Amino acid sequence: MQEEKRTEIASLGEFGLIDRLTAEMPIINSSTCKAVGDDAAVLSYGDKQTLVTTDLLLEGVHFDLTYVPLTHLGYKAAIVNFSDIYAMNGTPRQITVSLGVSKRFSVEDMEQLYAGIRLACANYNVDIVGGDTTASMTGLTISITCIGEASPEKIVYRNGAQENDLICVSGDLGAAYMGLQLLEREKCAFAGQDDFTPEFGGKEYLLERQLKPEARRDIIDALDKAGIQPTAMMDISDGLSSELLHICKQSNVGCRVYEDRIPIDYQTAVMAEELNMNLVTAALNGGEDYELLFTVPLSMHDAVSAIPGVKVVGHMTAPSLGTYLIARDGSEIQLRAQGWNSLEE
Amino acid sequence: MQEEKRTEIASLGEFGLIDRLTAEMPIINSSTCKAVGDDAAVLSYGDKQTLVTTDLLLEGVHFDLTYVPLTHLGYKAAIVNFSDIYAMNGTPRQITVSLGVSKRFSVEDMEQLYAGIRLACANYNVDIVGGDTTASMTGLTISITCIGEASPEKIVYRNGAQENDLICVSGDLGAAYMGLQLLEREKCAFAGQDDFTPEFGGKEYLLERQLKPEARRDIIDALDKAGIQPTAMMDISDGLSSELLHICKQSNVGCRVYEDRIPIDYQTAVMAEELNMNLVTAALNGGEDYELLFTVPLSMHDAVSAIPGVKVVGHMTAPSLGTYLIARDGSEIQLRAQGWNSLEE
Repeated sequence: MQEEKRTEIASLGEFGLIDRLTAEMPIINSSTCKAVGDDAAVLSYGDKQTLVTTDLLLEGVHFDLTYVPLTHLGYKAAIVNFSDIYAMNGTPRQITVSLGVSKRFSVEDMEQLYAGIRLACANYNVDIVGGDTTASMTGLTISITCIGEASPEKIVYRNGAQENDLICVSGDLGAAYMGLQLLEREKCAFAGQDDFTPEFGGKEYLLERQLKPEARRDIIDALDKAGIQPTAMMDISDGLSSELLHICKQSNVGCRVYEDRIPIDYQTAVMAEELNMNLVTAALNGGEDYELLFTVPLSMHDAVSAIPGVKVVGHMTAPSLGTYLIARDGSEIQLRAQGWNSLEE
Repeated sequence: MQEEKRTEIASLGEFGLIDRLTAEMPIINSSTCKAVGDDAAVLSYGDKQTLVTTDLLLEGVHFDLTYVPLTHLGYKAAIVNFSDIYAMNGTPRQITVSLGVSKRFSVEDMEQLYAGIRLACANYNVDIVGGDTTASMTGLTISITCIGEASPEKIVYRNGAQENDLICVSGDLGAAYMGLQLLEREKCAFAGQDDFTPEFGGKEYLLERQLKPEARRDIIDALDKAGIQPTAMMDISDGLSSELLHICKQSNVGCRVYEDRIPIDYQTAVMAEELNMNLVTAALNGGEDYELLFTVPLSMHDAVSAIPGVKVVGHMTAPSLGTYLIARDGSEIQLRAQGWNSLEE
């Protein structure tokens, strides 16, 4: 990982490492009464509700350290949790960070990882309030839990979508997946070579989407400013198809999504062409976009369309009409859920 | 793991497995507004504070499935988190459960694991409110986060111990460690044999302490009933020595602990004799006891001594007097912290 300096984790011990990693960590929120250093973190909430989400990342499954820098990995590991809290229309406030670390990693490696986590927390005003660090026999394991808050009347669930509601998506889809394909291609092309220059020119956006995603706090703020309360919402981590099916099932509605309305970046399209992959499949099932998928009443059409970075991609229907993508040629294609490929292979 | 029936996890998929694992899960607490099934769990707290703790368990590091049944593993994984919340003088209310699972495991295996987690939650009135389940290349990973509540004025930290405070310990120490030694011995003795009867007769208590520990809610309740507010408290997961040094450091005090007052069960003593191990070392550094270590003002001596299962083992001193064990012969032995052996080997 790191060539310059290597401190064995064993030389610090567990508590020494934790002290090192959490030194001088500022407390940002007044609801954080006690952060690291005790059996549990103490948080104080008034009339707000508490949101908790958690995410487990395993080396070889969720990330490949051949091409993912540890700082970026830490940043992303935090962001994916913030994204879940925003997807409830809440505000992330605190996280706990648990790490399983094998001997392959040095203290400096863990500092890099934590630097990314700390940067994400600083950017989103979140406190690190605890965690667990342990030895691992098998590489790196990262488990992050995020606690957030929201007014009860503002929280948006997956089960509130109604017939005729508009389906909205923030940003664009499929870029993170194409970024992963690009990284995998360059990894294979240069396997075994110590000194290589991968071909990333003109594809910086794809890499950024894969390696350093952001959570859409800006969209949550814009919706709030516009006075729009979504009827259902979630973040797009497993692909639009899969997430939309969740909302349809929990809200007991059907849907129609229009292929020509799905937002796709130019670089995503070029990369799909290069790899001879189906572009719409990538956008529907690619995963790791961390954009927001939400529904609003039909009457909100103009208000929601006026928000930069939000696109109306379809509408909800009666449940009996099923869940379909309308292709450019007008044909209807049933939406399918994908997910957990690593177990299904 | 399981011979009778085997359903491949892949046949259910991620969401199917989660549905299966969380079916018919009762909501116990009124503060649980929304449990599994959305991006995040929604909890409602009034004028109480929120406690959060998390724990990561990795196969081959924290547990050995050769001799730990999955149900017991699930139970223990939950209990160790509850113990952390009690150690703050709080009440555990919700947990999230993240699992990394390799193909070696079947749905039934995961149901067994969850059965243990659910039993622990039922026994301690805790709700399972979310989590993450993912594929793993390398065995089983368990990450649990617990949220609890407490009145602000009741929370006990590690930094409140004063000179002359009494040092108290619940239950007895070293038994869980001796249970582990026993299991390791039988595993080695019968390595490679399919059909064996390990020699556990007369050592049931040691096995129970290792495989099915409990959190000391009863002691927290008893202290409350007796009107005793500890000045500092933590649970004993890494051994009395290590934990006591934490309290001394954070409270800026020294301590004297008396060897002849350390509570040790008869079976622990017999096992140490059999293995030719130092009994006091096992009790001081063994770990996984999940008993409570706490300090109370000297004036509470009679009240605290009257609580069944609590023993006064020493007292706090001025910081300049250091941290020592007084042996039976009167000699003073400096306390040493142990921990994280797996990285230090």
